[in-house]
Formats: sequence, C-alpha cells, structure tokens
Amino acid sequence: MTYPNWLSQRAHLSGSRLALSFQETQWTFSEINDVALEYAGKLTALGVQKNTRVAILAKSSPEFVFVMYGCLHVGCEMVMLNERLARAELSYQIDDSSADYVLVDDVLKEKVTDSQLILFSRIKGTSPVPFTPQKEWKKERTISIMYTSGTTGNPKGVRQTAENHFSSAVSSALNIGISPEDVWLCVMPLFHISGFSILMRSLIYGMGVRLHDKFDASSCAAELQAGRVTHMSVVGVTLERMLDVLAADEMSVSPKFKTMLAGGGPVPVAYIQRAASYGISVLQTYGMTETSSQTTTLQPADAAQKIGSSGKPLFLYQVKIDGAEKAGDKGEILIHGPQVTPGYIGRFADRNVQEDGWLHTGDVGFLDEEGFLFVVDRRSDLIVSGGENVYPAEIEKVLLAHPAVREAGVCGAPSDEWGEVPVAFVVLNKPVETDELLVYCKEQIASYKVPKRLSIVETLPRNASNKLLRRELKAWL
Amino acid sequence: MTYPNWLSQRAHLSGSRLALSFQETQWTFSEINDVALEYAGKLTALGVQKNTRVAILAKSSPEFVFVMYGCLHVGCEMVMLNERLARAELSYQIDDSSADYVLVDDVLKEKVTDSQLILFSRIKGTSPVPFTPQKEWKKERTISIMYTSGTTGNPKGVRQTAENHFSSAVSSALNIGISPEDVWLCVMPLFHISGFSILMRSLIYGMGVRLHDKFDASSCAAELQAGRVTHMSVVGVTLERMLDVLAADEMSVSPKFKTMLAGGGPVPVAYIQRAASYGISVLQTYGMTETSSQTTTLQPADAAQKIGSSGKPLFLYQVKIDGAEKAGDKGEILIHGPQVTPGYIGRFADRNVQEDGWLHTGDVGFLDEEGFLFVVDRRSDLIVSGGENVYPAEIEKVLLAHPAVREAGVCGAPSDEWGEVPVAFVVLNKPVETDELLVYCKEQIASYKVPKRLSIVETLPRNASNKLLRRELKAWL
Repeated sequence: MTYPNWLSQRAHLSGSRLALSFQETQWTFSEINDVALEYAGKLTALGVQKNTRVAILAKSSPEFVFVMYGCLHVGCEMVMLNERLARAELSYQIDDSSADYVLVDDVLKEKVTDSQLILFSRIKGTSPVPFTPQKEWKKERTISIMYTSGTTGNPKGVRQTAENHFSSAVSSALNIGISPEDVWLCVMPLFHISGFSILMRSLIYGMGVRLHDKFDASSCAAELQAGRVTHMSVVGVTLERMLDVLAADEMSVSPKFKTMLAGGGPVPVAYIQRAASYGISVLQTYGMTETSSQTTTLQPADAAQKIGSSGKPLFLYQVKIDGAEKAGDKGEILIHGPQVTPGYIGRFADRNVQEDGWLHTGDVGFLDEEGFLFVVDRRSDLIVSGGENVYPAEIEKVLLAHPAVREAGVCGAPSDEWGEVPVAFVVLNKPVETDELLVYCKEQIASYKVPKRLSIVETLPRNASNKLLRRELKAWL
Repeated sequence: MTYPNWLSQRAHLSGSRLALSFQETQWTFSEINDVALEYAGKLTALGVQKNTRVAILAKSSPEFVFVMYGCLHVGCEMVMLNERLARAELSYQIDDSSADYVLVDDVLKEKVTDSQLILFSRIKGTSPVPFTPQKEWKKERTISIMYTSGTTGNPKGVRQTAENHFSSAVSSALNIGISPEDVWLCVMPLFHISGFSILMRSLIYGMGVRLHDKFDASSCAAELQAGRVTHMSVVGVTLERMLDVLAADEMSVSPKFKTMLAGGGPVPVAYIQRAASYGISVLQTYGMTETSSQTTTLQPADAAQKIGSSGKPLFLYQVKIDGAEKAGDKGEILIHGPQVTPGYIGRFADRNVQEDGWLHTGDVGFLDEEGFLFVVDRRSDLIVSGGENVYPAEIEKVLLAHPAVREAGVCGAPSDEWGEVPVAFVVLNKPVETDELLVYCKEQIASYKVPKRLSIVETLPRNASNKLLRRELKAWL
C-alpha cells in the first residue's frame, strides 16, 4: 500500500496555494517543492540516501523545514532532536538511534560533537546532484522518530510512519473540518509531534503554515487580530499568556480564526471561557508521541459540562480502560487505531508497544457514561501516600483555581510515615501567604491530598512544548 | 486493518448532529443508528446474517436508507439493483450475484419473482431479535456491489469495499474541504455510486443528507434558495434544468451553498458559467463504479481555460495514459489508488480488474502539459443519457437476438433533453417492422436504453477485422 509522494502531489494539485510563510516571506507548494528537491539534491551529494537515518537538531526556521522536506524526498528516517536537551541527552539519542548523519542548525553547533555532523550552512553551500524523487511512499515508511521518556525515565525512540501521520491528519480533519483557505499558526517546536504534525497536515491538506521561530504572546495575539491564521496549537500556559495580551491591549480576534487545539495536559476551564469571549474555540486534546498527536478531542460545546475531560476519540480511533467493567472505573488508558506507532527503535526495539493491537499508555483514566475520556493522571506521576492514590493534577487544579496562583506543580516527596507525600510549587500572580493557600486546599480536598510543603518559585520546569515536567520538580526537593 | 463501525462511531461521536432529512422529518446520527440497529434485528430475525449477500431493489426513501444501514450493521454484501431495469436485466443480476435474499420495496414488487424475496413491508413488520453490532469493520469488507456493463454487453458486478468508500470520501474532503455544518442534497439514485457515495460521506464525515425521492428541478432550486443544503451531486441535464428554474422564477441561491460535483460525462462550460452567476461552484468530475465515484476533479478556477478537462486526480490517486511518452499523447486511461475495486463477482470473478496495480478503464484520454486529464472517448462508446450509463453492446445484443436481425450497431445521438440518447442501425435477415423491434427491446431492457430511433441499413461500418466502428455510425446521424 502506497501514497503518492505528498510533496510532489501537493505541488501538482495545488501548486499555487500558500504552503509556508515566515516573517515577510512566503512559499507556495510549487515553490517549496522546488526548494525541497534542491535540498534533496544537496543531501544526496553529501551522501544521504534513501533509508539513511539522519538526526536533525535545529530551531524553528524555514531552513529547518527545507532540510526536513529534502529528507522526505530522499526517503530518510528523521530523528527529531530536541534543541533544549543537554549535550549528554542528545548524545544518548544520537547513539541510541545509530543515526548515520546529524544535520545541525549552525546556531546549535556547540551542542553536538559527532564525526558525521553536517551543518545546515554546509548543506546550503553544497551543489545539488541530479535528483529524481520517488513517485510513491510506502505506508509503513518511517517518516520521523521522536524520543519520549515515559515511565522509566529512559528515553525511547518512537517510530512514526507515513500511515501514522496520514491517519492523524485525516482524523483531525474529520473532527474539526478543513477548508482550502486554512492557515495554521505554528509556534510549537517542529521537533515535537505538536509542531511536526502541523507540517504533515500542511502537505496532506494543502494547507498553509504560518511559522514563528518561537512562542511570543504579543506576536501571536497580533496574528489572531490580523486574521492571517485560522488554526493554532497551544498548551494551557501559552493560551493564558495570549489571553493576557489580548486583554491588556484591548485587542479583538478576527472572525477568520476558527480553532485552537490544546494539548500537553488539561487546560483550565476558566481559560476556555476567557477564550470563548474572544470568539476563540479551544479544543482540549489528549495524545502523545506514540499516537502521532491527538487521539481524543473535546468539543467546545461539551467543555462546560465535561470539565476536565479530554473528549472522545477521533473517527478512526478507539479508546478503552484496562479492566474497567463499567463507566467511571479507573484504569490504564488503552488506544487502538492507525495512528499508533508500530514500535520503538534502538535499545527498546524489542519492546512490544501494543498488546493485541492496543497501545498501553501508562496513563490512568476513566470513561464516563457518555464515553468521554477523563485522564486522571500520568501513571509515572502517581503519588502513593499511605495506601491512597494521589494524583498531582487534581491538587494542581485546586491551586490554580486560587486567584493568586498563576502556575502550579505537584510531585511526591519521600516520607517515613506515609511512603510518599505530595508537595507543591507555585508561581504567583500577586502576593499571598502560603498558609492561606494550604487552608484553601484543605477546604476542597481530603487532607492526605493537601501538599505537605508549598514553595513559591519564579518559574516551573517545562519542556519545549511548555508541558509541566513533574519529574524535575522532584529534583528540587 | 479495521475501521470502527461507522454507524456506531458516528452515533457515539456526533449523535446529536443531523444525519438524514426527508420532507419534514429529520433523523440525528443517534436516531438513525437506533433505527439501523432495529432493522438489523429485524433482518437477523428473517435469516439475514453476516456475510449474507442481499440484493436490494428500491426507490429513494428513508426506508431504503434504513434497510441499507441495517445491512451495514449485520455485515451484509449489498447488491444494489437499478429500479429502472427490465425484469430480465434484474434476473440476470440476482442470478449472477447468487444473492441469498432479495429485499424489495413494495412499490416495485411486480419487477421481481424470487423465492428468497423479502418485501420492505415484511421487514418493517418483523419483530427484531436481540442484535449486537460488530465493533469493527475490516477494510477489505465488501460493502456494496454494483453492476456495470463494459465492452461485452454483459453487466459485471463490481465489488466496493469499506476501504474503497473510505478513500473516496477522504480524498474528496481533501479536495473540496468539509465542515461540521455541511448538508448534501441527494437526488441521485441511491443504488448508483453517485447517490450511494453521499451516504458513505455522511457516515464518514458526520454530514447531513437531504434526501429527495426523485430529481425535481423546482424542488432543488427551492433547496438552494432556502440555504438548507451546502453540496449537491448533479449531471449536466439536471444542472441545466435547475438553472432554468432559477432564471424563470428569478430566484437566488443562498450563500450557504458551496459546491456541486458534476459527474456522468462532460458538463458544457456554458452551464458552469451560468451556475457561477448564481455563486454556484460546479466541479467537473471523472469517475466510475470501479473507482467508487470521482477519481479526478476540475476546480472552477480552471474551468474556463481547461474547457473539456476532467481536472486532476484527488490527493490519494494517480492517473496515467497507457503508452503515452509525452503530454498530449492519447491512450487508455489507467488509474491507481485505494478507491479502485479489488474485482468483480459472479461470472467475471476471475477477471483481473487491475494490471500491476492499475485499473484499465477502457476510456481513451490524454494529460496536458500541466497534468490535466482530458477524456477523449468513453469506454466502448459509452452513451450517457440523463446521467445513466448506456452501453451500445448491451442493446446490440438484445437486437441481435431477434430472428429478423443479422447485424446491429448502436450509438449516441445528441438530445436537448437527456444530453444523449441511443439510436440503432440494423441489417435484416428478413422483413420486419421497426416498431416490432422496439417493442421487443422494451420487454428486455430499461426504457432509457431502448433506441429512440431505429434505421434499417444495407451494411454497417466495420474495420478490416470486421469490428463494428460505432464512431462512424455517428457520422450517419
């Protein structure tokens, strides 16, 4: 089973349509395909071939897109490296993936030492050799590999095939719709599935991507007001910062803007309501690297009465709870569908990612009577205190509801008495006594769930997608 | 590889959305799924089971949809019978398909005598037995079987799988876009791929279908004006009649209306321009039963400078010209993609429908420098009359069976009303009245296939191999 080469087909079918824009420059699908073919010729000249595994380390830029699209034409497997990782972490991934080459953005060259390193400037400066793209791509072709930690803390390289990305793009379209005029604002890292999936949708839909080199609340608010974009992917924190700018500068949002997909953990309902007041529809999603982005999505119409839910599966997907006998029973979330990775590479290559066709996510959740998914907690963050299960997200939600709290993070601390106890870190909007916050918690949750310590901090540890890293909180203890 | 059961999944994901409307009655996806489950229980009670092959003969109505959706739940293969066929033609298809049951709309009961006949009224009156739907459908499951003639004049039963229909729906969405508010006006026969594919899109997109029991230009114009529908499938003749009504009654078309897909042969550019004056975008398509509807589509923006073209392939599809070395070279049109039938049933079950993965259409065409497809000549001199395919060989076979006829040749003649109509030329063995021959035809083939004129001639034009040259018949008109 094959697909027509997505880049060639898009250039053929909608060559004059916008493919990418960055600052003041635009590329149509025809133009970006020409650039991609040129880069494919340059990469070929440098020794990169079909089925070569290349690691790529870059910051968001058109150049990064050109290199990736060139690799797509050549037929490479792309290991997407996170530019915020430390040298040792990068070394682990390059080593584990047995990457044949490491393609590195010049601004990041200090981060990697590798005999097979090729700087972006060298690619650009290389004369391309004649290159003929493949007409078809196999569905099972590995397009990208992304490392994710999971329960063990040892990052595993997740394979994402052409079919994974295609299913993901189509399922999302069947959920929220698509139109030839759509333009997706991309401020998420391109090396994460949140950003990379925007590029895949671009090729599959024939959709424009408006690329920013990083998230900046004011620049994003300006895009929303200008009506230059129709969609955007956010996490709770970035949404809140944009809402603050919109409020502070008394800005409005163009009616051309349609939908935000919110990933990386639950977005407070207060944010969704504030967004709605600007006409912005925010869809809470649940997904992961192993599912090439969203698997379930909550519609705005359901947001108010299904607070905390991640919604229902997309059309091609199924979700069930391991061992659940009835609605409300908690257990591990299992996922089935064509978006699920066929497996890992490197030292985890032998590990089965699916059992009987179902991905075991390691996350705990339940389905309510109507089939809405509630993710109770990431299993790896579960705190077990005196035999009771304590879910950090639940405590954070309570803290976040306090007007003085902007951000909250909770993790487990060792305790002689209880095994583990929850402790909290908060970032404030305005001054408040920690005792007041603890009293506030006591009023709303069982005493064993109330943080035993609460520290006020400047920032919380987050990854490049702004997802809270609870494990790093533990290192602060 | 599987899909979640489309009916169950739609009821689960968008149960409150409009699924079907007919006259003043509406059904949501939840409601229509309940009806479908009830019908599945009734059909089960009557002996219909998973993998049972049922032929269905009906006129467009909600009841017809209920029976089909019931069959989908049960897991039947549905042989879609054309209600305009003559008794002998229906018998052939029922026999060739080895249908286990024939489900017949009561208003058509005179058309079929079969021991395994079950009238719709009997289905409706049967008490359902408990029924549990399958959770998943295999991609290679045969959903529908439609008979189509070819060069030989013997209709062949074409299998259309779940993957064929899914690919077709998704490819169309990637071309024209989809939105949760879309409603497709269905006036095409549900037993044809043109109408049936609207139901498949409804389930896959979660899209509403506005069903009419037949095409009526005034009723359709009223729907367009009322803004109750966003899409519609047409053929040249129906489009022209609607335009006449819009003009005569000085009507306007709601801005909510988006797109018409035009199949069944080329639509005159004048119609497309007249439609544009009402804000209607008409997309010329090329497709066939073997490709589960459209394979190529011409965008309105290209209509003026690509007069006569059927456009470019949809995203997942490829088209090439057999033996062509450069743009403009004519040859047989070959098609590749997941929408292509895996093959035939019945007496043609052994015939390869694909060679090296490419469907040989029998149509002749060329691709221009920009890759636009031009269909020069239809397979076996196909006559398209009011959107129905009429195969000359099939009519010639009937004429040749008459003892007075030695040779017969049929071709299409232009018709203001139908686009084209069949006309016949015969060489006689012995004297006979032309009226007698026409009455003879009427007994055996659908009335739209009966020649509108019949001329007695001395000889028919043949090539050196004695093959009938139907194109030369046209010159005699």
